[in-house]
Amino acid sequence: MDSPRDPLPRAAARAQPVIGLLLGDPSSIGPELAVRLLTRPQVLRDAQLVIIGDRPVLEAGERVVGARIDTVPVASLAEVAQVPAHRIAMVALDAIGADAIEPARMTEASGRYALRGLEAAARGVADGHLDGVTFAPLNKGAMRLAGLAHEDELRLLQSLLGVEGFVCEFNVTGRLWTSRVTSHIPLAAVAGAIDGPTIEDAVAILERSLRAAGVAAPRVGVAALNPHAGDGGTLGREEIEVIGPAVQRMRERGVDARGPLPADTIFVAARDGAFDGVVSMYHDQGQIAMKLLGFDTGVTVLGGLPAPFTTCASGTAFDIVGRGIANVEGLAHALAIGTRMAAQALAQRAAPATAS
Amino acid sequence: MDSPRDPLPRAAARAQPVIGLLLGDPSSIGPELAVRLLTRPQVLRDAQLVIIGDRPVLEAGERVVGARIDTVPVASLAEVAQVPAHRIAMVALDAIGADAIEPARMTEASGRYALRGLEAAARGVADGHLDGVTFAPLNKGAMRLAGLAHEDELRLLQSLLGVEGFVCEFNVTGRLWTSRVTSHIPLAAVAGAIDGPTIEDAVAILERSLRAAGVAAPRVGVAALNPHAGDGGTLGREEIEVIGPAVQRMRERGVDARGPLPADTIFVAARDGAFDGVVSMYHDQGQIAMKLLGFDTGVTVLGGLPAPFTTCASGTAFDIVGRGIANVEGLAHALAIGTRMAAQALAQRAAPATAS
Repeated sequence: MDSPRDPLPRAAARAQPVIGLLLGDPSSIGPELAVRLLTRPQVLRDAQLVIIGDRPVLEAGERVVGARIDTVPVASLAEVAQVPAHRIAMVALDAIGADAIEPARMTEASGRYALRGLEAAARGVADGHLDGVTFAPLNKGAMRLAGLAHEDELRLLQSLLGVEGFVCEFNVTGRLWTSRVTSHIPLAAVAGAIDGPTIEDAVAILERSLRAAGVAAPRVGVAALNPHAGDGGTLGREEIEVIGPAVQRMRERGVDARGPLPADTIFVAARDGAFDGVVSMYHDQGQIAMKLLGFDTGVTVLGGLPAPFTTCASGTAFDIVGRGIANVEGLAHALAIGTRMAAQALAQRAAPATAS
Repeated sequence: MDSPRDPLPRAAARAQPVIGLLLGDPSSIGPELAVRLLTRPQVLRDAQLVIIGDRPVLEAGERVVGARIDTVPVASLAEVAQVPAHRIAMVALDAIGADAIEPARMTEASGRYALRGLEAAARGVADGHLDGVTFAPLNKGAMRLAGLAHEDELRLLQSLLGVEGFVCEFNVTGRLWTSRVTSHIPLAAVAGAIDGPTIEDAVAILERSLRAAGVAAPRVGVAALNPHAGDGGTLGREEIEVIGPAVQRMRERGVDARGPLPADTIFVAARDGAFDGVVSMYHDQGQIAMKLLGFDTGVTVLGGLPAPFTTCASGTAFDIVGRGIANVEGLAHALAIGTRMAAQALAQRAAPATAS
């Protein structure tokens, strides 16, 4: 289960993971969140951080927070290795100037900057200079104005990194991870879109990512599709014909998967500690639960890419830009999860015999 | 909106509502819950209570709780009016003997007793002797063994009381009420089962019941069907074509209804006080939220019947029968809600000019 696919070149073994930090959409709360995060001394403890971004964007955040971030400018990600430990490196994108930043507005300039940042981060991962990437909130609308043709940043990164396997977004609240088999499709199309191989992919990637995040023996719950899990087939047969057999196949492959379990109890059980991850069948099934469990201050992890990309669940929040009230906990948690996953991957590469 | 349909004969105006209490499935935690509830002095304050049940069932509960309930036996519900205030009346069903009670087992004898109780309670409502009914947990399986042909107790009561209009079950957690447009059907059938008139019925009956429960100006939220409420039609068109117009028609009829709102945020808003009631489109949409919000200690109200029937959301819990650990709060809350609704209806009949 746990063999990281790793076709990419890697720099020599390092003691700490190198994490790229993107400042988010320049018009948004992204820069102020990033600056507030960087004022916390503990962020320098477990990772070598490198800001991939432009100074005017950092300064926009510094003005809101009322703090200056001490950085070591480097010309390229290749040079981050030379930066002293516990200092923050910074690589410029040269993608936006101070006068092009319009706070609280969705602009093409901000979108272009965001896209350049994702491209640079992906290149850094592909070249082996970055072990993980954490990004402050991005605005899909702005990125579309600037030419984003992919469905979202996950698909853009998948394309940039040449990933052909299953990718998906995880939502993390507290210690609970969720993924879903279907996402942005009409409810009427959900039942027809559920199939065994996709469920198996979703379970496998969730289990693998939980291990990568440090959970030694992940327990994965799989939600049912129908009320009362189909009630023995009287309220729908997908549990018997599709979901149950897929869970069974994953168990035979050594994954501690359980289900299908009724959707209205699986999240109560998960909240109470019965599962490390839950695979839901459709968007609202998971999101109703996660938002009630506090996902607005949670974390999104992009799964299936060759390095962890993490961000906070909260959005660009144009309505509170510049007021200094944006909550940094989600981004802090995103950096912590990404750092842990990257460190785990480094350790596994250093001692491959323990990785099976 | 607020004109109670009341084709049934009613006893002369009374100061307090008469509430029938059913002891639940004799094999279950029902009797011990009922006894524990009746040991609370405050239950005698706002209603004239009458136990509709057999002494061996009451005694089964008394043994678990270690308390005796002081009752005034009466021959029929018509005589409850003669029982002194603050005493508990009791009308026998003569439906089960002590030796037929098998704790923690689903039996035909228990199911038959439960059905007799529901029939007697319905008759008491129809005859104007009862203003409301609260029942301890029933077991559908046992009632089926004893011949229940209806889908559930709501449909049985609808049939016994000759109700032809829309009936539905409300789930109540804390101050939040929910109802649903579809219930026990496969998820694949949900989109096809949503239509304007049913949504309007669900909104209207929820609003009317909230008023009956004492909410002066109920605020009703209506959930969307598709993720992100269809996102402008790209993720499904039911919000535009069906749900939105139904909500609009209810607003034109003076109901403070809002929606369709994304399902993953409407319950967060409702939890935070934005709504008194939420109409969900399908079973798990509402139940995922309600169970996370603590519905296991919540209340179920049967809506659309000529008098309030209420019960606790928790079930017969055969696994803990007799251990004295069953939580009585749900049943206590059920009695409180039923009493309040019945008192409100009494007051409206006494002063019909204020009821419009």
